[in-house]
Amino acid sequence: MIIVLKNNKSEKEIGAFKEYLEQKYNVGVHVSVGHDSVVLGLIGDTSAVDEDSIRAQEIVGEVKRVGEPYKKANRKFHPDDTVIILGNGLKIGDGSLTLIAGPCSVESEEQVTEVAIEVEKSGAVILRGGAFKPRTSPYAFQGMGADGLDLLKKARAKTGLPIISEVMSSSQIELFDDVDIIQVGARNMQNFELLKALGKQPKPIMLKRGLSSTIEELLMSAEYIMASGNEQVILCERGIRTFETKTRNTLDISAIPILKKLSHLPVFIDPSHASGLPWLVEPLSMAAVAAGADGLIIEVHNNPAKALCDGAQSLTPEMFDSVVKNIKKVADSVGKKL
Amino acid sequence: MIIVLKNNKSEKEIGAFKEYLEQKYNVGVHVSVGHDSVVLGLIGDTSAVDEDSIRAQEIVGEVKRVGEPYKKANRKFHPDDTVIILGNGLKIGDGSLTLIAGPCSVESEEQVTEVAIEVEKSGAVILRGGAFKPRTSPYAFQGMGADGLDLLKKARAKTGLPIISEVMSSSQIELFDDVDIIQVGARNMQNFELLKALGKQPKPIMLKRGLSSTIEELLMSAEYIMASGNEQVILCERGIRTFETKTRNTLDISAIPILKKLSHLPVFIDPSHASGLPWLVEPLSMAAVAAGADGLIIEVHNNPAKALCDGAQSLTPEMFDSVVKNIKKVADSVGKKL
Amino acid sequence: MIIVLKNNKSEKEIGAFKEYLEQKYNVGVHVSVGHDSVVLGLIGDTSAVDEDSIRAQEIVGEVKRVGEPYKKANRKFHPDDTVIILGNGLKIGDGSLTLIAGPCSVESEEQVTEVAIEVEKSGAVILRGGAFKPRTSPYAFQGMGADGLDLLKKARAKTGLPIISEVMSSSQIELFDDVDIIQVGARNMQNFELLKALGKQPKPIMLKRGLSSTIEELLMSAEYIMASGNEQVILCERGIRTFETKTRNTLDISAIPILKKLSHLPVFIDPSHASGLPWLVEPLSMAAVAAGADGLIIEVHNNPAKALCDGAQSLTPEMFDSVVKNIKKVADSVGKKL
Amino acid sequence: MIIVLKNNKSEKEIGAFKEYLEQKYNVGVHVSVGHDSVVLGLIGDTSAVDEDSIRAQEIVGEVKRVGEPYKKANRKFHPDDTVIILGNGLKIGDGSLTLIAGPCSVESEEQVTEVAIEVEKSGAVILRGGAFKPRTSPYAFQGMGADGLDLLKKARAKTGLPIISEVMSSSQIELFDDVDIIQVGARNMQNFELLKALGKQPKPIMLKRGLSSTIEELLMSAEYIMASGNEQVILCERGIRTFETKTRNTLDISAIPILKKLSHLPVFIDPSHASGLPWLVEPLSMAAVAAGADGLIIEVHNNPAKALCDGAQSLTPEMFDSVVKNIKKVADSVGKKL
Repeated sequence: MIIVLKNNKSEKEIGAFKEYLEQKYNVGVHVSVGHDSVVLGLIGDTSAVDEDSIRAQEIVGEVKRVGEPYKKANRKFHPDDTVIILGNGLKIGDGSLTLIAGPCSVESEEQVTEVAIEVEKSGAVILRGGAFKPRTSPYAFQGMGADGLDLLKKARAKTGLPIISEVMSSSQIELFDDVDIIQVGARNMQNFELLKALGKQPKPIMLKRGLSSTIEELLMSAEYIMASGNEQVILCERGIRTFETKTRNTLDISAIPILKKLSHLPVFIDPSHASGLPWLVEPLSMAAVAAGADGLIIEVHNNPAKALCDGAQSLTPEMFDSVVKNIKKVADSVGKKL
Repeated sequence: MIIVLKNNKSEKEIGAFKEYLEQKYNVGVHVSVGHDSVVLGLIGDTSAVDEDSIRAQEIVGEVKRVGEPYKKANRKFHPDDTVIILGNGLKIGDGSLTLIAGPCSVESEEQVTEVAIEVEKSGAVILRGGAFKPRTSPYAFQGMGADGLDLLKKARAKTGLPIISEVMSSSQIELFDDVDIIQVGARNMQNFELLKALGKQPKPIMLKRGLSSTIEELLMSAEYIMASGNEQVILCERGIRTFETKTRNTLDISAIPILKKLSHLPVFIDPSHASGLPWLVEPLSMAAVAAGADGLIIEVHNNPAKALCDGAQSLTPEMFDSVVKNIKKVADSVGKKL
Repeated sequence: MIIVLKNNKSEKEIGAFKEYLEQKYNVGVHVSVGHDSVVLGLIGDTSAVDEDSIRAQEIVGEVKRVGEPYKKANRKFHPDDTVIILGNGLKIGDGSLTLIAGPCSVESEEQVTEVAIEVEKSGAVILRGGAFKPRTSPYAFQGMGADGLDLLKKARAKTGLPIISEVMSSSQIELFDDVDIIQVGARNMQNFELLKALGKQPKPIMLKRGLSSTIEELLMSAEYIMASGNEQVILCERGIRTFETKTRNTLDISAIPILKKLSHLPVFIDPSHASGLPWLVEPLSMAAVAAGADGLIIEVHNNPAKALCDGAQSLTPEMFDSVVKNIKKVADSVGKKL
Repeated sequence: MIIVLKNNKSEKEIGAFKEYLEQKYNVGVHVSVGHDSVVLGLIGDTSAVDEDSIRAQEIVGEVKRVGEPYKKANRKFHPDDTVIILGNGLKIGDGSLTLIAGPCSVESEEQVTEVAIEVEKSGAVILRGGAFKPRTSPYAFQGMGADGLDLLKKARAKTGLPIISEVMSSSQIELFDDVDIIQVGARNMQNFELLKALGKQPKPIMLKRGLSSTIEELLMSAEYIMASGNEQVILCERGIRTFETKTRNTLDISAIPILKKLSHLPVFIDPSHASGLPWLVEPLSMAAVAAGADGLIIEVHNNPAKALCDGAQSLTPEMFDSVVKNIKKVADSVGKKL
């Protein structure tokens, strides 16, 4: 961390500030006296140094963090890709492309099982399905809850597909005991109490980027989970909020190579939520694979028009099958196994 | 709600869709056959009608909601301003200007009591102080927790000021039994499980707008609390995320008159978080009052440079005193009592 | 266009408004009287109907445009892809992938010729080079001007590559007489006087999307050029402005399939300006090709560190050669010839 | 400017880079060798140093500009407020509040004269009126052109009000010979050729902030005009583009105090374009005055429903009169004369 002091500070003031930094944060401080400014360089582990608090000091002009504020999620300290292995032996982040598919909401045993059978045929290796649904309106369908999780498990029993579902509160976590991957939705990306609780779970967590969260904030939220003990984190970009209105959100495709460079964690893309439009799922999926994504999570419903939630963005099983064929071509071209 | 159908649909298809809408949502449907498009008008309570689900129907071209999707927060159905009365008789939203002030984080009995005494002298009528702190980094100070709430209560005992503090999870709510107002932070604005739980509390909730949440989403989150039974909601704008970098966030000043028009709930502004810069608190506060805000929530610390969190944006008690004097001038000019 | 009237308007008022619309805009108006609202449907060519002006009428509640406000750029009225043919017979938008490469700024004959020879070897078919440079600072290098265009022509003479360069004002257009494609930069996307003047040019125009322009606004700017008589327009997405700071701009990858659906014009991507980072050019280019782009425009400099402008985002010729090899793999997989 | 070098660079490399900087930019370079990083401090005038070009150097890790890149617009080098004096003696930026009002577009002699007479009565001291209109659609009314300017002059003759109108291209400038203030619209804020040409005009220029331009970019565009010789620049904030949809743009109220701090130029607000809604003009104007604006520019039309452009956001003269009364109260409270 580089701190530029305001002009015209006395040696005594500078010395006192140097001592304060050394003691408060247990770091070394290198003082460099320039022509018209004094620059301090902080040496050592500065991840706990609060930029805002430094900035509040009367003596300080500018602050610039040189290193990253995350450690466990940082590729610098963990150069190899993290590979996550599920109970059935499925590997995520090992250079293959992982397809997750399923309905937005679990609605009935028939629905989820039928979709599971179909998407597996097309190439999906994990089944998604919402049991607890974060809905903008309190009057909208809020999901089947624990019953929905049971139906997902039945579909897993039938197909062998591991399951992923979203948790909305730490009080729900125990219901997810037998769920293979727990998802944190975009709206909860900075629900820090939830992140800490998930850090104590012995299973992978898929962490979705918040609608207005920066890439660095996403990594800091991953750090919350990892610092609490759980290093099996999957990052997921699902669109950010911009002024453009043709799509529900704007897929930040650059997030893929940037996250892969800064972190060792697997990076997934959710083209269904990013666009909100079923016909965009194919080109966005193909782009994501070309840009280096480790996996995709796609909404598939056997009857989108009757879906209780977000049907507008779901593919039918037939559409999904066709999309996977085109995804496969791109995956082949970049050396990713599907 | 207006639904424009795609061209060239048969009468039979249109009739079937009309029936489907009537049955599924218990609304009336008025069909209007134009020259080259058919438009359906939904009549009755459409707040539970899911636009996305409508949009997913093959027959549908465009959907436009004409009414608002919120009811309890809607001024249409509750023309009079909501006035909230605290235990000590203090009224919020009654045409006066309510000043809330205090430290970002509670750090010690001495700190919070000293600040409380000072801000009361200057005109604050409620004491704020963070006990549970939502921090981007897991390595940053996370607040004193329950002990912090106890210190706030001690400061209340000394000054008589009611207290407000932020809750971060439904599991913490019982600790807030003796807190006068519970605050929901911007990052939790769409933590729907928390909102539902707060809807069962017998006390006012201050709901902060999320960094990338629309005004309508803020009102929908208020609706969550109200639909669960608690109609004492205070809305708080605290800056949204844009491309501008001179300020931490961009204060959306227009949100004040818009929220006052759409809703009957009191509207507060947090100029400290909106800007992240202490010298901007004064002009933003003055602007907020001129635009019709019912109250302000301002960070004041007796030693900003030593604050454990967000010191950079805190005023000293002396600065606060001076800011209040200027706020008062504007308040007088628009007929608000301080 | 659908207009929802305010409630409780008399038949006379409605009739008068209907007549006003019919006369002012030469459209048919279909009136549909619902239970609690009256909806007007405008029939005919509504592209000249000004939504704002309609919205200003006291009688109007809501306005929704159903059709698109652009005609010549609209695929509905021109289902086949526009194919642009340059003087040397090169086709753009015919299903092949067109690579444009070259330096940000033309700096010397040696520089631009050397880069031209190198990028041609790697697969570029058009040479880019800035002669007039839009720089944020008046103190930064503003380009070589007319001399720069001359050097570009010399490089064309040596390599046979057609050339593209940016115009910044209608008074400069005559200098571009012998330039193959004229580029309009993002900052000039809504310089309507310039667009009208370019509409009278007998050559292709590459129109870059403004940093905060919507997809519809980009198409409306294309419409300006086309309505003035020049239908050879190439659209170019080059990143939009968001809150994310890791990249200079956020590449809106969804813009590719959306523009291809809404319009028949060729769609290019500028990964160099979108990211501002040379190492991101490869993954973004690959993503763009997978998403259906018709071409790419990439900055290549033989000595990025000494570039007079934007060197930070330029590839070296060696890097470009390697990037093209990976682009080619993706292009092959989606059936695009390079 | 502070440059942090990459680790493990040799003394020789560092020395060579130091020399390169000194020679290329004519600055002093102070080298400070820290524990694990080397930091260079540039001393002298760094406004011409291109950050991007520095960043492109292989040896460079990070770059941080400490000073501002603008000089003539910078309050540091010009501590006193710029006061602009019009031909009739009217002062702008002298601590008073300047009200500009008039129609979006000039439509007829009767219209503009009538509006001029009315707004003058209410307190406006300058008449606005668009002759050349930047419209998103080529099919929308493009303004009366030179004839519109003539009608403005007639209204000036009748009322004595100085006039302001928007120029869209440098080729139009000669038509503005007898116009008192020339306005640059938001879409042309970075039309650098136009800015340079206006820098040679002997009259005040009102420069509107671009929809996605930062505060620093606005000041850099002012710098273009000033560096070309014209220091009479008025800055105008008119809303930026965000995700919020209730208003056409989001008024960045913080821009007022920030611009006043960074620059000595007068700062105006355009509440009509910022919101796009007439009923928001009053609260936004009051907020702007409370936050320290030097002036307001407001759209007033004698028949908004028949306005040929942007009628939806115009006030009637009666509404304007009432708005001014409320603005006056706030202005009084902050010591601004109207």
